[in-house]
Parts: sequence; C-alpha cells; structure tokens
Amino acid sequence: MKNRLTYAMIGGGIDANIGQVHRRAIALDSRAQLVAGALSSTADKSIASAKALGLDPDRSYSNYQQLLEQESKRPDRVDFVSIVTPNDTHYPIAKLALEHGFHVVLDKPATQSSAQARELEELADSKALVCCVTYNYTGYPMIRQARAMVHDGTLGTIRKVFLEYHQGWLASDLASTGHKQASWRADPARAGLGGALGDIGTHAENLISFVTRLEPESLYAKLNSFVPGRTLDDDASVMINYHGGAHGVLTASQICIGQANGISLRIYGDQGSLEWYQEAANDLRVTMLGANTVTYTRGGPDVHSDAVISSHTPPGHPEGYLEAFSNIYRGAIDAIIAQNDGVHESRLAQLATRMDAGTQGVRFIELCVESAKKNAQINWA
Amino acid sequence: MKNRLTYAMIGGGIDANIGQVHRRAIALDSRAQLVAGALSSTADKSIASAKALGLDPDRSYSNYQQLLEQESKRPDRVDFVSIVTPNDTHYPIAKLALEHGFHVVLDKPATQSSAQARELEELADSKALVCCVTYNYTGYPMIRQARAMVHDGTLGTIRKVFLEYHQGWLASDLASTGHKQASWRADPARAGLGGALGDIGTHAENLISFVTRLEPESLYAKLNSFVPGRTLDDDASVMINYHGGAHGVLTASQICIGQANGISLRIYGDQGSLEWYQEAANDLRVTMLGANTVTYTRGGPDVHSDAVISSHTPPGHPEGYLEAFSNIYRGAIDAIIAQNDGVHESRLAQLATRMDAGTQGVRFIELCVESAKKNAQINWA
Amino acid sequence: MKNRLTYAMIGGGIDANIGQVHRRAIALDSRAQLVAGALSSTADKSIASAKALGLDPDRSYSNYQQLLEQESKRPDRVDFVSIVTPNDTHYPIAKLALEHGFHVVLDKPATQSSAQARELEELADSKALVCCVTYNYTGYPMIRQARAMVHDGTLGTIRKVFLEYHQGWLASDLASTGHKQASWRADPARAGLGGALGDIGTHAENLISFVTRLEPESLYAKLNSFVPGRTLDDDASVMINYHGGAHGVLTASQICIGQANGISLRIYGDQGSLEWYQEAANDLRVTMLGANTVTYTRGGPDVHSDAVISSHTPPGHPEGYLEAFSNIYRGAIDAIIAQNDGVHESRLAQLATRMDAGTQGVRFIELCVESAKKNAQINWA
Amino acid sequence: MKNRLTYAMIGGGIDANIGQVHRRAIALDSRAQLVAGALSSTADKSIASAKALGLDPDRSYSNYQQLLEQESKRPDRVDFVSIVTPNDTHYPIAKLALEHGFHVVLDKPATQSSAQARELEELADSKALVCCVTYNYTGYPMIRQARAMVHDGTLGTIRKVFLEYHQGWLASDLASTGHKQASWRADPARAGLGGALGDIGTHAENLISFVTRLEPESLYAKLNSFVPGRTLDDDASVMINYHGGAHGVLTASQICIGQANGISLRIYGDQGSLEWYQEAANDLRVTMLGANTVTYTRGGPDVHSDAVISSHTPPGHPEGYLEAFSNIYRGAIDAIIAQNDGVHESRLAQLATRMDAGTQGVRFIELCVESAKKNAQINWA
Repeated sequence: MKNRLTYAMIGGGIDANIGQVHRRAIALDSRAQLVAGALSSTADKSIASAKALGLDPDRSYSNYQQLLEQESKRPDRVDFVSIVTPNDTHYPIAKLALEHGFHVVLDKPATQSSAQARELEELADSKALVCCVTYNYTGYPMIRQARAMVHDGTLGTIRKVFLEYHQGWLASDLASTGHKQASWRADPARAGLGGALGDIGTHAENLISFVTRLEPESLYAKLNSFVPGRTLDDDASVMINYHGGAHGVLTASQICIGQANGISLRIYGDQGSLEWYQEAANDLRVTMLGANTVTYTRGGPDVHSDAVISSHTPPGHPEGYLEAFSNIYRGAIDAIIAQNDGVHESRLAQLATRMDAGTQGVRFIELCVESAKKNAQINWA
Repeated sequence: MKNRLTYAMIGGGIDANIGQVHRRAIALDSRAQLVAGALSSTADKSIASAKALGLDPDRSYSNYQQLLEQESKRPDRVDFVSIVTPNDTHYPIAKLALEHGFHVVLDKPATQSSAQARELEELADSKALVCCVTYNYTGYPMIRQARAMVHDGTLGTIRKVFLEYHQGWLASDLASTGHKQASWRADPARAGLGGALGDIGTHAENLISFVTRLEPESLYAKLNSFVPGRTLDDDASVMINYHGGAHGVLTASQICIGQANGISLRIYGDQGSLEWYQEAANDLRVTMLGANTVTYTRGGPDVHSDAVISSHTPPGHPEGYLEAFSNIYRGAIDAIIAQNDGVHESRLAQLATRMDAGTQGVRFIELCVESAKKNAQINWA
Repeated sequence: MKNRLTYAMIGGGIDANIGQVHRRAIALDSRAQLVAGALSSTADKSIASAKALGLDPDRSYSNYQQLLEQESKRPDRVDFVSIVTPNDTHYPIAKLALEHGFHVVLDKPATQSSAQARELEELADSKALVCCVTYNYTGYPMIRQARAMVHDGTLGTIRKVFLEYHQGWLASDLASTGHKQASWRADPARAGLGGALGDIGTHAENLISFVTRLEPESLYAKLNSFVPGRTLDDDASVMINYHGGAHGVLTASQICIGQANGISLRIYGDQGSLEWYQEAANDLRVTMLGANTVTYTRGGPDVHSDAVISSHTPPGHPEGYLEAFSNIYRGAIDAIIAQNDGVHESRLAQLATRMDAGTQGVRFIELCVESAKKNAQINWA
Repeated sequence: MKNRLTYAMIGGGIDANIGQVHRRAIALDSRAQLVAGALSSTADKSIASAKALGLDPDRSYSNYQQLLEQESKRPDRVDFVSIVTPNDTHYPIAKLALEHGFHVVLDKPATQSSAQARELEELADSKALVCCVTYNYTGYPMIRQARAMVHDGTLGTIRKVFLEYHQGWLASDLASTGHKQASWRADPARAGLGGALGDIGTHAENLISFVTRLEPESLYAKLNSFVPGRTLDDDASVMINYHGGAHGVLTASQICIGQANGISLRIYGDQGSLEWYQEAANDLRVTMLGANTVTYTRGGPDVHSDAVISSHTPPGHPEGYLEAFSNIYRGAIDAIIAQNDGVHESRLAQLATRMDAGTQGVRFIELCVESAKKNAQINWA
C-alpha cells in the first residue's frame, strides 16, 4: 500500500495565488508530491511556471489535454489531478481527467451548472474515482467539532442558523483597473451565474450543510450589484427554509469595507447553541440552555475525535487557513488510497467534501439567481 | 426658566423591572424628580409601590385616570408623565395624558397600531406637547457618533446595513411557567401583533433609521414561532430595500441561547464602514476604503460633539445601558424645557426619539406581519 | 428607620470631574440626596458651584470648616460627608468631619501617610462612625463574583496574581500646559509620595486585596518617571510576595499610550483560574484544571449572591463604571443606616471598602517608594 | 545556484511532537527536503522513525555521530542539520555538526550554558557556517511589522515593554505521571538551569530583543516552583532595565490554568504604542499619541515589506504558528544558500535568528537564576 502519492496541478501558475495555496496545503503534510503540471492556459506560462516550481521538463505540459493524455500513459502516472483553474474550465477539465481515470480534486464552485456537476458526479461514481471539491473551510478542526456536536444532538433540534461570509476587496471597481483576480470573477462567461454567490456564497451554503446536515426546502434570495458597471452580484442575502422547520440566514458580500475574509457560523438549537468565527478559528463557543458559555478550543478538553485528527499542533498554537485547507487534501489522499487499495476509508477521508456537495453548491447558486429574478421564494427541487 | 423638572410614572411598580430602569436612567442626571405615580394596574399595588418609593401619599394614585385628572389640577402639577405599562395600554394612557396637557415619555412599541400612533403624534403636535418614545439604544454615545459619521458623508453612499438584536431568554416556554415578563409578551392581546418583532425588532428598525436616516421602500419578512404553543413570533428575519438602493438585513430573535441581549449594527458605504456591538458599546470600528480599521472610543480623539454631549465619564470608564437610557430622558427633559419656555431646543433634545419614530416602529411591525403572511415582498406605504 | 439619607460634598466643584462622578454614582440609586456643599477651595467657586447644583443657599458653604461646623449644629444635619478634594487635604478634612461626628466617605488614596490613615481609622472607630474609602473598582459585580469564588475555594490555593492598571493620558507633559487634573497629580505636595502609584496603583493593590484577601509579606518595586521634568513616578512595577506563598505582579502606569483606563485582574490557583478585564466588565472568565473556559456573566447562570445584589439591570444590558461606583455608596449608606439605627449591616455594607483598606493602600505607596529607593525587597511591616 | 536544499534531522522521532512541527514548518514552503535522520536517542526508535517517514534506509542513522560522519562523506551530503533533541544534547550535537562542516538549525534554548553557546557561535563564525536558533515566534509577520515600526522610530523612544508568555499545562505534576514532555523539562540535568525560564522565558526574552533591539543593562528576577516536588521554576517574573532607560516586565509561567500558550507583547514609546497577542496573531494594534487605535493586519494596508515577505496567504486568511515557524526556516535556507553561493543574503535571511541571539537567551537564563538566588538586581555583564 502506497502511503505517499503524486499529483499534477492544472492551473495555478506562478502568478496565480490559489495554486500556491493548494500546493502549500498539500505540502504541509508531505503526503503527496507535485510531479507534473499544466499550470496556465498559455503554453509559455505553463512551461515557465513548471520550471519555477522545479518540475521535471518531461512532465511540464503546455495544456491540460496534453497532461492528461501523456500522464495516463506513464507507468508512474500521477495519482490525482488538482484543478485550480477559473470556474468556466472546471467542467471540461474534470470530465477529461475522470475519463482518463484520474482521481480529481476540484476547486469550487465545481462547475457552471448543476447539470454539469451531476454529470461529473455520475462519471466519477461510474469509474469508482474519487472526486473531491475543496470546500476548504470545512477543514477547520472546530468546524468539525461543531458538526460532531450538532450530529450527536448536543444542541437539540436546530432552529436557526446564521452564516456570514463578508469581504470588502470588491467594494470598488477593481476589474476595470485590470486586477486579475477581480476581472475573471466579474465576467459571467468565466465566473458563471454568481458573483459573490459563486465565489464565497457557495462556501457559505456548504459550511451550513457540512455542519448541520440540514436539507434545504426553499429559499428567498436578494442579490445586489452595488458597484457601478458590475454585471454579477457582489452582495447576496438569502433566507433558507430547511426540512424540519429550521431557518437560515446566509449573507455573502464582497463590498463590506473593512472585512478581509470574515466568516462566522452561529447555530441555535432548542437545547444549546454554538458560535464560530474564522478570525478566532481555534475556538468554538458553546452555550447550553440555562448555562454559561463554554469555549472549546482546538486541542483542548472534551474535543471530539474528528477535531483531534484534523489538528496539526498542540493547543494554543494557532492554526489557520492553510492547516484547514490541508485537511481537505489529507482526506482526499486517504480516500484515493482507500479506493486504490480497496481498504476502508479513514475518518479524514469520510470528512472530505465530495462531488455531491459540489453539485449542491452549484444548485444553490442557480436557485438564488432564480429567486432573486422572480423576487419570490423558490422551492429547492 | 426651570432647569429641574418633576414627573409622574404610570406603571413600573416595584415588581416591574422596567420602571426601575426608567427611574434610574432619570436619576442619573438629577434633572427630574419623581413626585407622583400610578404604578400598577391594581390599586393596592399602586399605593404600595408608591410608598416603597417614598412618594407623597397625596400623589400616590390608584390608577392613571385619577393621576392625570388630579395632577392636572395642581398648581405644582408634574412636568411630564413617563408611561411604562404593557404595550396594549400605551395608547389610551398617552392619549389621556396629552389631552390633559402633559408632556409624555412613552415606552416602545408606542402603540398597538400605526393608526393609534399617528393619532398620538397629531394630538401631541396640535397641543404643542413633547411626546418622546424611549428607543433607548439610540442614547449610546457611539451610536450617535455613527449617526454623525453617516450624516457627514464619511462612509459615502450607504449600500448595506446589518442589524442584529438577538436574545435567548425565550428559547423555552417561560410563559406557561408563569414568568411575568414572558407571559404578557406571549399574549397577542397585550403584546400586539409582534412578539420578538414588537419587543426588540422595533428597537432594531429604529436603530437603523436613527443612524442612517434611510427611508424604507419595501421589505420581505420571515417570522418564526419556534417554541411550541407560542402564538407570536419569537424570531424575525427581515430584508429591507431602502430608497436610493441601500439594502438591509435585520434579524431579531429571542431563541438564541447564549445571547443575553446582543445588539450589533454594521453599515457599509462605498467609501467606508462602521461596526458597533453593544457588548463593546464604548467603541466604534471605522474602516475607510483602502485603510486600516480605526477604533473610535467614547471620549477619545476625533469624536463628534453629539457623542461628547451624550457622555457622562472620561474615556476608558465603561458606560453602559443606563447611561445610554439616561440620554433619552436628558433629551426629553431639554425638549420639554424648550417647549415650556419657548427657547431653542438643545442638541440633546434634537437627538431624542419622538413620536414620529414611534409611529414608524409600529408600522414596521404591521408590514412585517403582512409580508410574512403573504410570503412576499411588501411596499412600505 | 430612615431609608434615604442626605449628604454634603466637600470638593467636587463644577469644573472638577470627580465630584460629578460621585454625585452621579449616588444619584443612580436615589438613596441619598445632596443638600449641602463646600465644593471648592475658593469661596467664590464654592458658592457658584453650589448654586449651579441647585443647593439651598443656606447650606452652600465657603469652606469645609464652615460646613462642618454649621451642619453639625443643624437639627437636619447631613448624614454623611463625601470628600473628593485633592489628596493632601483628605486628612485634615476627614479628621474634622469625624470630630464633628459625621460619617465620612473619602476618595483614595485616603491620606498622605499611613500614620494619618491609621489615626483616621482609630478616630472613626472610637466614635463609632462609618469611614469608607471609594475603591470604586471593587463595586463591579463580577469583581465581587471573583472574590466569592476565591473565598469559597473554587480556585484552590492561590499561586499567582496579575493586576494591571494602565493609562496613557500622562504620556506627555500635560502638567506644564496647565492641565488641572495632571497638575496636582504631578505635584508631590498635593499628590503625596506616589504619582501613578497613588493615583491608580493604590486601586490596584486594593483590588488584589479585596478579591483574594491575601496578605502581603514583602515587595520589590521599580518606579519610573519617564516624562522629562516629572518628579513623581508615572510608571510603577511591583512584585509582591504574599503570606502563604502566592506571588503577585502589579503594574500601574500612566504612560501607556492607547490605554484609556485598562484594568485587568488574573488569578491562578492550583485548581482553577479567573480573568477579568474592565473593558468587558460584565464577564468573568473561569477555567478549572483540565476543563474548558467558562464565561460567567453579570446576571447570568450560577452567579454568587454578592454579584446579584451588586447588579442594577438584567443580564446583557452592559453595566459600567458608574454602576460599580454606586455600589460603594450603596454599601456606605447601608453601613451608616446600620450604625445609626443599631441594626445588622446589609451584605452591601459588608462589601464596602472601609478605612482599614485605605490605610493599607497608603502603606503600599510608602513601601513601594522605599523599595524603589533602596532597589531592594522590603518587608511589609 | 541550488534553490532547494536537503536536510537531516537529529531528534524528532515519531513520538516527539516537536520534530513533526519542524518538519511541517519546513515542508510548507517546499524549499528543503528531509533526506536523512538520526531521529531518536535509541537506535531502534531512530530506525523505526526514519522508516515511518519514508527515509532511504541508507540515510536512516542509529545515532547522530554516525549521521554526521557518514553524511559528511557523501557527495550528496545534506545541506543542513536540524537539531530538535532535549536541551542537554544541543551543545555536543551542534558542535560536532559544525565541526563536520554542516550548517545548523538549533532548537532553543541553544545550550546549557552561555559559555557553550559562545563556543558554538565562534565555531560557526570561524567555519563560515550558518547557525540559526528557532526562536519561532519572531517569524510572525506582525511581529516583524512591530520590529520595523520600532526601528523606523514610529513609536519614538521606547519606555516600557510588557512581554507575557503564559501556559497552564504544568499547573499540576505531570512529570511524576510519566508525561514525556513534562518529564525532561522537570529534570535539571536535561532541561538545564531553567524550567519555565528555559522552555518559554527564553522565547520571551528573545521576542523583546528581536522587536525592540534594546540592550539589557540589569535585571531582577523572581522564580517560583509552585508545584510540589518540582525542582526547577515553573513561574518566572523578571524586571529588566535596558540601556537608554527603557524598562521591561517579562513574565513566563506554566502554572496559568486556562492559558494554553498565551503570548503577548506590548511596547510603549513616547510617540506611540503597539500591542500584539498570539491568539490574534494576524493583527497589530498601534496607537499614536493623541490618536485612535489603528489595527494593522497581515496583508492589509500600510504593512512593512518585512511583514509582506513573511506572509503566505492573502489578508483575512488566518495564519498561525506553523506559518510563523516556517519563516525561520525560510530565512535559514536563504542564509545557507547565500553562504554557499557567496551571494547577498535575502531579507528573510537577515530576519532569521542566529546563534548570537541563542547565546543571549542562555545568558538570560543564567542571570535570572542568579538574581533570584540573591534576591537582588544583577548587572548584565
């Protein structure tokens, strides 16, 4: 049984921030090694980026088709492909990768339409391939603690959920100034139906689903495009009715000046509540009915094993975004090993977010856009 | 010109928490003295409460009708009446008080219907009487700082407002256990159309209006009654569209276990933002586009005169709820003196919340209830 | 039994901040009424201040000698005298007041020397008069909660105490610019031996003593005068060895730019710990060995009756400095009533800080100055 | 010029937490690869640990002597050696490594005596080898921001420094229960002169020096051993007088129940101040005289290039302990490359903590122990 894997990256060239983030998240645990890449949509940049990363020239590809075709023929072919390109190319790349028999780790939102997402989901299933989506915020140990506490009934029946994901970096018109990250996100052809919705709203929807396992029944969404000239939403407010009677308020905005990347999750049940803030990611505030608030901490007393195995350092040594991100890859790698070797999945693998979550995330975007257009509540079909 | 006033209290007997709060808020500044009262709906309790408070037996009344009639005939009649009874009695008492020529300070929500509220508004106007509503959270110095910074354009055009007012004390069925405060609030006949909406949602609506002066154009509300057997809402989520394009998300809930009385206000403009949390009431976090967050503090540098005059102690000496509450009464007292003596109103008087805000608050409750029933967006008419 | 008292104030004229604070702290509970005053060291200002406060001209005195003499002859003489003058006059005024048979409430530091303080202590005892010192920070409900939890053994044996009292307002040379508050504090003749030590260090020493009841055995102090030209210390760091083996680190500084009035108390025992910060005065963080941190809140679950009776409003309604200050006066008033009427003292009276604490505070200053001069550890004799 | 290095680890076997931390800190940036190891003081464990880490059996050594000797003869010998053994073995291992011509990265405290430390310092200098000490807390971007702001004079002349490093994990007698981490730290033969002093106090001393560059002139230390049976200190309080008049209060304690790993640094100059807390490591609070507090954030506006180059992710994506730790290794690797290739050192290399800081840290421990024994202030010679 091979315990260390190899992988190829598609997208994520040297001037793309997100590729670096994925590579670091993987490197942190030394469980998989980058050995091949088609790192840019431009052949020259791909090769230059591969060189800068020290890749073998033989495995430095000009484009993803070449990578997938040639890697698939190598005896030492990569174990999986990490796809970190702009949204519009996720679908064709992931499809081709799966068709060539590669396990896939895919950035979010998974695809441009839920139909595409479902197709990938079925394709992966039919070929018994792992297809994970990097909903990286689910990797935080205390988010996994929250999930465990909801699941074991500590909070009782869930009544209300608040999820905020607020940024301010798109408060002004960066796209027209040529800002690379802002530009493709502002372009419906590349970003898809959703602006803030697709970029961060889908994380928000996924975080609620991951932690609570509540199933949405209907939703009402209001989308704003505050910055003049912007086509897609830069501010989304969504009310979600869940099966069983719980109600959610989800807001995802990129015009909140002063918020760099503020994420908070608050869940109120009939027996207790929990509150989590990314800026204090190592803590989870829990209050039981009639009792004082208790702060659970990563690595501290009474923490669930799901949080313990998702931890890298002793308590009091702050862990952050990269450590959380690495847990998605640790799970994906474990899932791939389990699939390859026919063994049981590790718990980390079970906690990794798969393509079904990716499909739900894209469906969420579609439904919000529809509700906002109709200015009416829409059933989640 | 008389600088110290006298007042009568209606409601607020010795077992009613809110009367004590109003009396302390007034006492803090020694600007008005309690000299008369009809402190309970029961004659015996009224007299006993008056005795406990050391009132002159001559001015310890059995009921409000008696108080208003007899005080109106005294040469040393009280300068104003403070009404702190349950919601359903606000209207008749305030009406009678105004008819007898008394200035009035009224707890919120002002009345059971906006028609009643408008009637009081007109009655006060026609008789040139001051009629204030104790939207006490507007009394916080840093809320007044926020108002000044919105008004002077510091934040630019307002785009988004988040107002949360979350409590947890009604997460279980206190009313059925005979809890006095919970019981009348759960009873539509006494509380009115709104549960959480009337109790705290109306504060929330007012705080937004006070700080931003935005005018609501339409709203969509979702009301939940999570606790079994509860008729009125215990959880309200409202999206508000403002004239000019700003959007607000207002949530008022009383089932948030772990939240004692959590209020937060966050405002995002195209040039800057501000954030305020009642639990750190002496601070205001301000971020200008492209700059770091600056924490303004009560009494600290660069604070607006509206905040300065609303302050009682030097910076670093925490002020809280009672100090804020006292500012409403300081303003009301100044307004009454100005009215009585025909002089210009002080700035504190100008900042006090008047009956027009009370009317808007009641209208807000009515529209939320209508929107929730129709599950549709409603225009603010 | 008289439940409402009258008092005279000595010092605290209209341009003195501290007089206003004391008056508001008393007014908050409507238990005592200001009826007489010698409000300034200048006769004219005394009279003008009395007029501004609406005092009866008959009881508006030019100086404290006159006040004490004439009030002592009135049948309706005041019940107690509140002394809020600069430090150097505390002793003669308090002495004369006690000699005339008045109960006294005295600002801190009580006197210029511990010999004077002991004399006042004995005088008050011999005449069966109440003599309280306004160590106002002991009035915070959660400080009283902390005291109860130390006393009942929750934390086990106390090992370590950290007390910080940090301000920044004297970081530059305000005294030479004529700043009134800064000037007298910078003048050894008026302020006494200690600068920051006397102004805030004595609060710090008292807070530790009040909460832990530990008895100091020896101390080592380092005093700095950072601002050029300043004679007295503006920064004090003290290590205290307590009987029984506990160790304390106390720092009191007035050159900490950015700190308005930051006070924190942290206590570590062998079974648990507690942490309190004035800026979040309504919370107390408690951690038991091997357990998660629990946040006790004013008015919340499991709070000791000493905290409950020291509270003015429901939980979640922030209380601050004035509410805490008022508790010292509530206790003093209760103690005076008990003394006057020969009844048992209320619990609030037992919690009020008396002249013995005042003596200890002055002794603390003396010993710190001696230790700093010798650069050596000094026994507390 | 070789941009990626190889390294060997001495100590840090699979049951040693700290080896894993160092390996992850290095892996995060993929700049150096672990290719050899003598991972335990026991030959069997060394080999087993090497196997678990996937090392080549040829380079899996039984002990450090073997590793250094054999690696020194290989043409592909490792570029540097990372030493993460218990304190008492640092000196002989580092000495032998330097003698064999290896660059060294050494855990803190560097050695058992300052004489040993100076010897290593001279040895490294004489052989032109890099010898870094992993004072990892200096790797935090906002600590480097603080350093830059002190250096460029933003704060003016430094007056006062507070450094706290508080943990609670040694509040009870873990060593006697066989807890591995606690046991060797409690044993003077292995830990050296200092308990908490050596384990965390030396970090504290270094953080002050790194940020302020102040030079200690004298100190007074009080050491406590609160837990019965413990020989070494578990609680240290130190006052430090710096050349030029600044004063520091440094407390390092391991009996603070409820503190997992609490580090704070506060610096007050005559023009401004800064405050940093590890639990909010991405923020730095800065206050200029007469102005409001400004929160600088990692990646945010106006951040110094030293902080920017020490950053791994965009603003708002929390970075923590491992990211900071990695910066020490990034600097060490850059320094080694510069040394090997005769090129100028990168800025990251200049920021790495070298052996001179290691010597100062050990000297600090010695002086604190001497001061505490004599109960007197000691000059830093």
